Amino acid sequence: MSDVTTTDLYEVTMALSYVREGMDRPATFSLFVRGLPPGRGFLVSAGLEPALDYLSGFRVTRADVRRFAAALDRDPEALEPLLGLAFEGEVRGVPEGRVVHAGEPLLEVTAPLPEAQLVETYLLSLVSHQTAVASKAARCVLAAGGHPVVDFSLRRTHGPQAGFQAARTAGLVGFAGTSNVAAATRLGLPASGTMAHSYVEAFPDEEAAFRAFARAHPGPVTFLVDTYDTERGVAVAARVLRDLHRGAGCGVRLDSGDLDALSRRTRELLDAAGLPEVRIVVSGGLDEYGVDALVRAGAPVDVYAVGTKVGTSADAPYLDSAYKLVEYDGRPVMKLSSAKVTAPGRKQVFRTPGGPDVLALRDEPRPDGAEPLLRTVMRGGRRLGPPDDLASAHARFVRDVTALPAAARRMRDPEPPVPQVSPRLAALTEGVRERLVEQAKAAGGSR
Amino acid sequence: MSDVTTTDLYEVTMALSYVREGMDRPATFSLFVRGLPPGRGFLVSAGLEPALDYLSGFRVTRADVRRFAAALDRDPEALEPLLGLAFEGEVRGVPEGRVVHAGEPLLEVTAPLPEAQLVETYLLSLVSHQTAVASKAARCVLAAGGHPVVDFSLRRTHGPQAGFQAARTAGLVGFAGTSNVAAATRLGLPASGTMAHSYVEAFPDEEAAFRAFARAHPGPVTFLVDTYDTERGVAVAARVLRDLHRGAGCGVRLDSGDLDALSRRTRELLDAAGLPEVRIVVSGGLDEYGVDALVRAGAPVDVYAVGTKVGTSADAPYLDSAYKLVEYDGRPVMKLSSAKVTAPGRKQVFRTPGGPDVLALRDEPRPDGAEPLLRTVMRGGRRLGPPDDLASAHARFVRDVTALPAAARRMRDPEPPVPQVSPRLAALTEGVRERLVEQAKAAGGSR
Repeated sequence: MSDVTTTDLYEVTMALSYVREGMDRPATFSLFVRGLPPGRGFLVSAGLEPALDYLSGFRVTRADVRRFAAALDRDPEALEPLLGLAFEGEVRGVPEGRVVHAGEPLLEVTAPLPEAQLVETYLLSLVSHQTAVASKAARCVLAAGGHPVVDFSLRRTHGPQAGFQAARTAGLVGFAGTSNVAAATRLGLPASGTMAHSYVEAFPDEEAAFRAFARAHPGPVTFLVDTYDTERGVAVAARVLRDLHRGAGCGVRLDSGDLDALSRRTRELLDAAGLPEVRIVVSGGLDEYGVDALVRAGAPVDVYAVGTKVGTSADAPYLDSAYKLVEYDGRPVMKLSSAKVTAPGRKQVFRTPGGPDVLALRDEPRPDGAEPLLRTVMRGGRRLGPPDDLASAHARFVRDVTALPAAARRMRDPEPPVPQVSPRLAALTEGVRERLVEQAKAAGGSR
Repeated sequence: MSDVTTTDLYEVTMALSYVREGMDRPATFSLFVRGLPPGRGFLVSAGLEPALDYLSGFRVTRADVRRFAAALDRDPEALEPLLGLAFEGEVRGVPEGRVVHAGEPLLEVTAPLPEAQLVETYLLSLVSHQTAVASKAARCVLAAGGHPVVDFSLRRTHGPQAGFQAARTAGLVGFAGTSNVAAATRLGLPASGTMAHSYVEAFPDEEAAFRAFARAHPGPVTFLVDTYDTERGVAVAARVLRDLHRGAGCGVRLDSGDLDALSRRTRELLDAAGLPEVRIVVSGGLDEYGVDALVRAGAPVDVYAVGTKVGTSADAPYLDSAYKLVEYDGRPVMKLSSAKVTAPGRKQVFRTPGGPDVLALRDEPRPDGAEPLLRTVMRGGRRLGPPDDLASAHARFVRDVTALPAAARRMRDPEPPVPQVSPRLAALTEGVRERLVEQAKAAGGSR
């Protein structure tokens, strides 16, 4: 499927009009999240690298023109002005893994207006989704308090591509592994997995299943012990592991029932069997709240496997993201209508240790000790450096999340920090608003 | 990305063990949804056609084997037994567009155990997501009560692939169009779109924007009128349409504010301007509840555009789906552990007009007047007919949804119909349960 036609029709109708009108002066669009959903005290920037991949390859081919024409029920000739249009603009972005807040641009695209417009939908789809999942996954890492968390979400994500993106963003915030083989091998993440209930059921009994699994896998194995009766399953697993002289790196997985009580009982049984090194993996409908409850209760869990609720960011499956025109041909612009006022102008976010972020205009001087979040990552449609890697993104995440106020990091009713607006940006916003209100009055008067 | 490696690692470890053990007898897995989320009175089967595409192309290549080995940190030789493994089994499925209920199989896969196992994750990811979105979209169609509904979800779906799938499932339940150009042109759906606020902002004023848009698009146009002040925007749109002698097929879009009040005022203004044929399109955070409220209030809305909340099935972003082994080598199997008991054996669902569905064993005689929901659609890894089309799926949906009890169709607190279990299936379930309980006791006793 062409990435170019994976777009809203209106991007095409607008771009065509812009080209016809000769409106190809530089436009800046700002991609940001208006407000955080309940249950989030911060966001984690994700999706910038895939976005740059997309922009690097963006070029309207003849086949794309034919599809545009078909969608508009017009002759392909009418769409010819878009042929060959490529993305040759500038991108400033917040590197992946950084903590961001409401209203702060995740990326700003500056390019001739038709190009900057045509890429809107795809960029929003990539960045909104990945930032949503990364922000949920980040909370799981915080809840686990140093215990490894692994991603088991692929089966319930919104299709296979969403599963890949979920595994990637989970890796970005420090998950210890993913069950997704494609994601693990492409991204260099540890692959993680055990066995299904169906595996146990396919054998005459649990012992036969566990022994067969160990025959196929000479390294560490993890047995799923809750297919029939969990305590009996643990006893069988312990017997097989002892018989085979395995233990180090091995584990048992609990996937149902009262995970707190069962993990304690399992720990007792394993210790009594002389297998203190065998780890307990838990799964089954967990998200940060489930992990937090087990960690706070002191459940003897070694590895937390989270899936569906994290991979779909189930309690907040979308972010209120926007891709707003903030400047055209040097003129700051904004929208006036109710409840969705956005600040005009190209922006920068300054972060100072211990203080609130400052949302400022791009060219404002950097306050003392402040760090700018937005970096220029693409110019003339080309990346300015090699692709970023997940390890670097993870290091940024750890640094940023550690510096957050505790109220932003807590599980229940977190309080998102609110960025300050610089006096210059506030003044510009007010000035543009006044100009637009006057203009709207004039337009109304001329009816 | 290889579809074969887009799988959970445990599918690979289990399949390898099955091959090593010579456990390649036929296995049947049943894919179903355990229970409906709140706010759903029925599900709509979706994802079967993409699932058949996936299965048709499933074959483990040498590159896949290398990735499996890398994920398991083993030599590729150890994974050689999986090389060349293809899907050559049978699939019985509920055709897309049919209404289904909790516990009813959406599809049953029967194949040699390793094959049937390896395809689990991908099938779940396709079918769960698409059925979730189709079921949400179906409620929008019901709420709209005959008014056209269009899909604007691509920008906030879980990535571009999820957006394509969302547009497809929306088409399947009868949406009148989608903004997604790739989906519209590939699937033969009408493409739908207007203009963005940024378009209006890029011009000196609204009138200039609307006139430029009309110059680029000689056919019907829809103007977005709420960028600055909605009433003034409507007045400007009316003036431009009148000047250009346009009207039929044209519209104005309201994307913010009190859509009920604004649509009434807009209708008055358009009618007063002599433009009764100009349509009113509304958008902005709508789902079935928002549509229902406007329809019940009698708001003069012509087209409902729904996006984010429908494309992500935001109030129920996942389904409690399962892919359960129900028979291996002629032996019915099931899982005993708490709260997740599943019925064993290969199944059929019989639907009788006016009565509840009956969940039965596959080979049971069909009750008088009943229609079987599961059809054999693939045998020997090959489709038994040409791919189904969305129009047929839509016709099935209309027939099924019309026959549903009103309580299942209503917006607030719908009551999902509960399928009956046939006496033979109930007896088999009890028999297998007793056997497993005895077996578990015996295994426990032998510690």
